[in-house]
Amino acid sequence: MKRNVTVVKIGGNVINDPLKLESFLKDFSDMEGMKILVHGGGKRATEMAADLGLKTKMIGGRRVTDAKGLEIVTMVYAGLLNKNIVAKLQATDCNAIGLSGADADLIRAHKRKVKEVDYGFAGDVDAIAGKTLIFFLNHGLVPVFSAITHDKKGQLLNTNADTIASELAKDLAADFEVELIYCFEKMGVLKEMEDQDSVIEKIDKSYYSKLKADQVIVEGMLPKLDNCFDALQNGVQKVLIGLPELIGNRSLIHTRLTL
Amino acid sequence: MKRNVTVVKIGGNVINDPLKLESFLKDFSDMEGMKILVHGGGKRATEMAADLGLKTKMIGGRRVTDAKGLEIVTMVYAGLLNKNIVAKLQATDCNAIGLSGADADLIRAHKRKVKEVDYGFAGDVDAIAGKTLIFFLNHGLVPVFSAITHDKKGQLLNTNADTIASELAKDLAADFEVELIYCFEKMGVLKEMEDQDSVIEKIDKSYYSKLKADQVIVEGMLPKLDNCFDALQNGVQKVLIGLPELIGNRSLIHTRLTL
Repeated sequence: MKRNVTVVKIGGNVINDPLKLESFLKDFSDMEGMKILVHGGGKRATEMAADLGLKTKMIGGRRVTDAKGLEIVTMVYAGLLNKNIVAKLQATDCNAIGLSGADADLIRAHKRKVKEVDYGFAGDVDAIAGKTLIFFLNHGLVPVFSAITHDKKGQLLNTNADTIASELAKDLAADFEVELIYCFEKMGVLKEMEDQDSVIEKIDKSYYSKLKADQVIVEGMLPKLDNCFDALQNGVQKVLIGLPELIGNRSLIHTRLTL
Repeated sequence: MKRNVTVVKIGGNVINDPLKLESFLKDFSDMEGMKILVHGGGKRATEMAADLGLKTKMIGGRRVTDAKGLEIVTMVYAGLLNKNIVAKLQATDCNAIGLSGADADLIRAHKRKVKEVDYGFAGDVDAIAGKTLIFFLNHGLVPVFSAITHDKKGQLLNTNADTIASELAKDLAADFEVELIYCFEKMGVLKEMEDQDSVIEKIDKSYYSKLKADQVIVEGMLPKLDNCFDALQNGVQKVLIGLPELIGNRSLIHTRLTL
């Protein structure tokens, strides 16, 4: 029987709120079994850029990363946020280790080719060093990933944290039963954007196509759900979307994705 | 027979100069055997503080770290500098892993008690997680440490990089023949501050006392050399001080410390 591992992704809404973060990290620490945390942190980087007098350019909800912007996300994601999360987890006896994709060559990516849009130093994932990751998990370490990758040629790259979570989950699926949980500011995928009671509790592939066609699911949710189905199609057992509290209480209403 | 490990410390003068850094990292990558890199990076943090409109307070050559200052060193040391060094080493096929002391609880410290001077969030080292460090080395990983530690209660701390290098070296001395190399901007400890030809090639403990009494060694060099002798007295086999080029060419003039 395969062992279990849970990959949890949290976004800026948790990270930017000290109380929410503390509560989330307590729940994460209490989770049994092998686990991995992936964090974004968009707003903090945008604030830092503003403090430094720089403007952050966004296209279609994605950050455009120029050289200076890459410095900022590297500082904020891989430094400030990552190390503070690790220190807080360590305080709860969770043996966290903060990692970027460059560390131990864990997540190799390439600079996204310029088509209609030039995203700058944005990286698309090519390979996960699964052996090293499993070696850490076997040693009782809890990897905490910031969304910074590298190209193995010396270049750091900014990569979507949702994608990193799904790529890690996919890679581990060969050796583990993998549960992938995307935590965000809502209880799940909503039918009506402003109505928290409209959570769609199950979405399979054909229903997803319909929801897209009917424009119920739009914009930022599209790449997130694409990542979910990509994970499922590549052997990940279970994919959930919901509030951060979901990881401490799986009976909380949420959205489950299925093929 | 014990295996060998080399602990190398580089400071701001290498890190802040792209060409020097590239050349150093190539030499470091070429070094055979197990190795660990510890980096400072003072100037970059001072520049970042200035860009953010903050002033850096120094007392006796040591940074005073207030809450905002801690954020900056965490970003710059553990994020920007650490990840760029790791990415560059990865490009030369050195399987570097960037670490702070919080990661895997590798370097535990306590906030320095306030005596005459309040250094703020400055940490003095209490314990190294030697087993985890050796576990990484055995796996062929090359730890790259920024000078950020934690207190295991959720607080990150700013720690002197020279001290981190000597503490790591001391802890490894039980299992390894350890060589500790401090690279800085001079060829070694100088008799005349401005004369690169005045390198003192050997300093033992009693000569060190004399050099201190005669005020040949003053200020910033005192804690550095105290770290060196502390390492030697705790089982570290070999301690050298010299230019970054020393790691690629041990016949280069340098200072060797002995008991």
